[in-house]
Amino acid sequence: MSSLGFGDSRRGLFSRRHPENRPMAFEPRDPNYAQRVRDNFARQTVMTLIGAELTEVGPGTCTVRLPFRPDLCQQNGYVHAGITTTLADTACGYAAFSLMPADSGVVSVEFKINLLAPAIGEAFEARARVDRPGRTLTVVRAEVLAFQGERITEVALMQATMIRLAV
Amino acid sequence: MSSLGFGDSRRGLFSRRHPENRPMAFEPRDPNYAQRVRDNFARQTVMTLIGAELTEVGPGTCTVRLPFRPDLCQQNGYVHAGITTTLADTACGYAAFSLMPADSGVVSVEFKINLLAPAIGEAFEARARVDRPGRTLTVVRAEVLAFQGERITEVALMQATMIRLAV
Amino acid sequence: MSSLGFGDSRRGLFSRRHPENRPMAFEPRDPNYAQRVRDNFARQTVMTLIGAELTEVGPGTCTVRLPFRPDLCQQNGYVHAGITTTLADTACGYAAFSLMPADSGVVSVEFKINLLAPAIGEAFEARARVDRPGRTLTVVRAEVLAFQGERITEVALMQATMIRLAV
Amino acid sequence: MSSLGFGDSRRGLFSRRHPENRPMAFEPRDPNYAQRVRDNFARQTVMTLIGAELTEVGPGTCTVRLPFRPDLCQQNGYVHAGITTTLADTACGYAAFSLMPADSGVVSVEFKINLLAPAIGEAFEARARVDRPGRTLTVVRAEVLAFQGERITEVALMQATMIRLAV
Repeated sequence: MSSLGFGDSRRGLFSRRHPENRPMAFEPRDPNYAQRVRDNFARQTVMTLIGAELTEVGPGTCTVRLPFRPDLCQQNGYVHAGITTTLADTACGYAAFSLMPADSGVVSVEFKINLLAPAIGEAFEARARVDRPGRTLTVVRAEVLAFQGERITEVALMQATMIRLAV
Repeated sequence: MSSLGFGDSRRGLFSRRHPENRPMAFEPRDPNYAQRVRDNFARQTVMTLIGAELTEVGPGTCTVRLPFRPDLCQQNGYVHAGITTTLADTACGYAAFSLMPADSGVVSVEFKINLLAPAIGEAFEARARVDRPGRTLTVVRAEVLAFQGERITEVALMQATMIRLAV
Repeated sequence: MSSLGFGDSRRGLFSRRHPENRPMAFEPRDPNYAQRVRDNFARQTVMTLIGAELTEVGPGTCTVRLPFRPDLCQQNGYVHAGITTTLADTACGYAAFSLMPADSGVVSVEFKINLLAPAIGEAFEARARVDRPGRTLTVVRAEVLAFQGERITEVALMQATMIRLAV
Repeated sequence: MSSLGFGDSRRGLFSRRHPENRPMAFEPRDPNYAQRVRDNFARQTVMTLIGAELTEVGPGTCTVRLPFRPDLCQQNGYVHAGITTTLADTACGYAAFSLMPADSGVVSVEFKINLLAPAIGEAFEARARVDRPGRTLTVVRAEVLAFQGERITEVALMQATMIRLAV
């Protein structure tokens, strides 16, 4: 198993699940994980360019929020799928990073995203949750929500693979 | 087949292939396709924000180019995977759009991208080519290249599904 | 929106969500959906070949179960990723099909699967749930679980796009 | 770079490309790679079950062939998408494996496949080619073709990530 890049995390999988098979909280290996994630996020210059902010980080979870701006759009005035993806990828990366040891870096190996609805709204949130943490590879899923007044619409769904880099 | 969203394009598939099964040029249905693609691209405000330009469009192909800028980066100073994806998604969308009838819109259904190498370079190009055009759904692949002096590195590989919207 | 293939399902999305944004039950359009799914499954000859059975179908959900057999394996004696995928694809297809009108067919447009752990066990289940039903396209996610004694391991995670065919 | 799992393969990337950016032949690290692939394939019991055979292996390429059988089908009598995927995954795995050192194992990390046309034909071939070999991770693409008399139809397109296991 460890050769697969998922370390010994499999051993405790069932015990970390409640009966409906929903993941319970993961244990972070680095108690300072939240600050480490925030510091790392602050170095992503593109987040400043597009106006995104990190609004939540937990062990294995991360939320990135983006207010609408007219300069982030595709041809119909919706937020561009690439920007939606940028949010989701970033949230997935930091959800994975939160569970890594302190001496880690993280980059995306690959991801797949389904665009479910036009990204129309006053603000958007990508909410990521680790599905399977590993010593090398971590699998994460995210949804992107659009907020318009009282209404919340799911606009995208991502499934991603992140890799730990030793630093 | 037409119910599959790939229209009658399958009928002529083999005849469009040479013996090594490489796609030959597609026939555009709209002789004005190149101008239609350029006009549509000009409406993508995010392309102006990041500094991307459309540098090539053909029947079933499209290239989008992006000079490096330090405000497009992730934590290590590489261009963010989300920006790489924005380029590739846009190139795929317009490669598909080039083959659609004049009264069409296009949006992404989904895509998957592998990040192959850090996006380091003076400029980047996403080069897309339609693999399978359809009446409703079109499958497109793209590669993203980084240019640094004389050297070209392939940094990402996308496989995408685009959908035609009647307008 | 309807042009996107997701019909008017977006309109009621928020109302179908409870505060934690978990999907509530979908309303089937065909009251006879369960029998329609079972009849369709019975026509999949490959399910008989590999020994899979449909063990649950609900509005927007489906479970397919496979006992281990040594002739379903890859080089290390694990169930082959292609068989794991066959289960997950089938569960996703029928989860989508359950919400379609009576005069529908369904085929896969595309899917992406992460293999999380070796498929080792006495039996396997692919459990699919529709994330976004649409008039034409439906997005579904599935997990594949391995059962070994008391232990349950998540071995794969799929995100898929299914298309309705008019029949 | 080596941290990314792609080893130093990036260094020689440009020199391995001709002007149209088509990959040239890869150098196998194990001169006995073809026999190693064939021996490994022979241990995949599911290949015998479905009747698939390895018909070509080169440095970074692999073809797997499957004659049609009525017990491999989905509800409409086409070969099941899961079987198409099984072929493509296997071809991708061995294309990657062919470039690995002698003391290697290989498993799939993830893959994404687009189903382009119904899998109708007398026989099917999955043809895989490595896009990016790496020390740990290898990215491979495959197409699945259907053969019916004189006609060849592309029925699926895969983009996959394979991982080397030390053995």
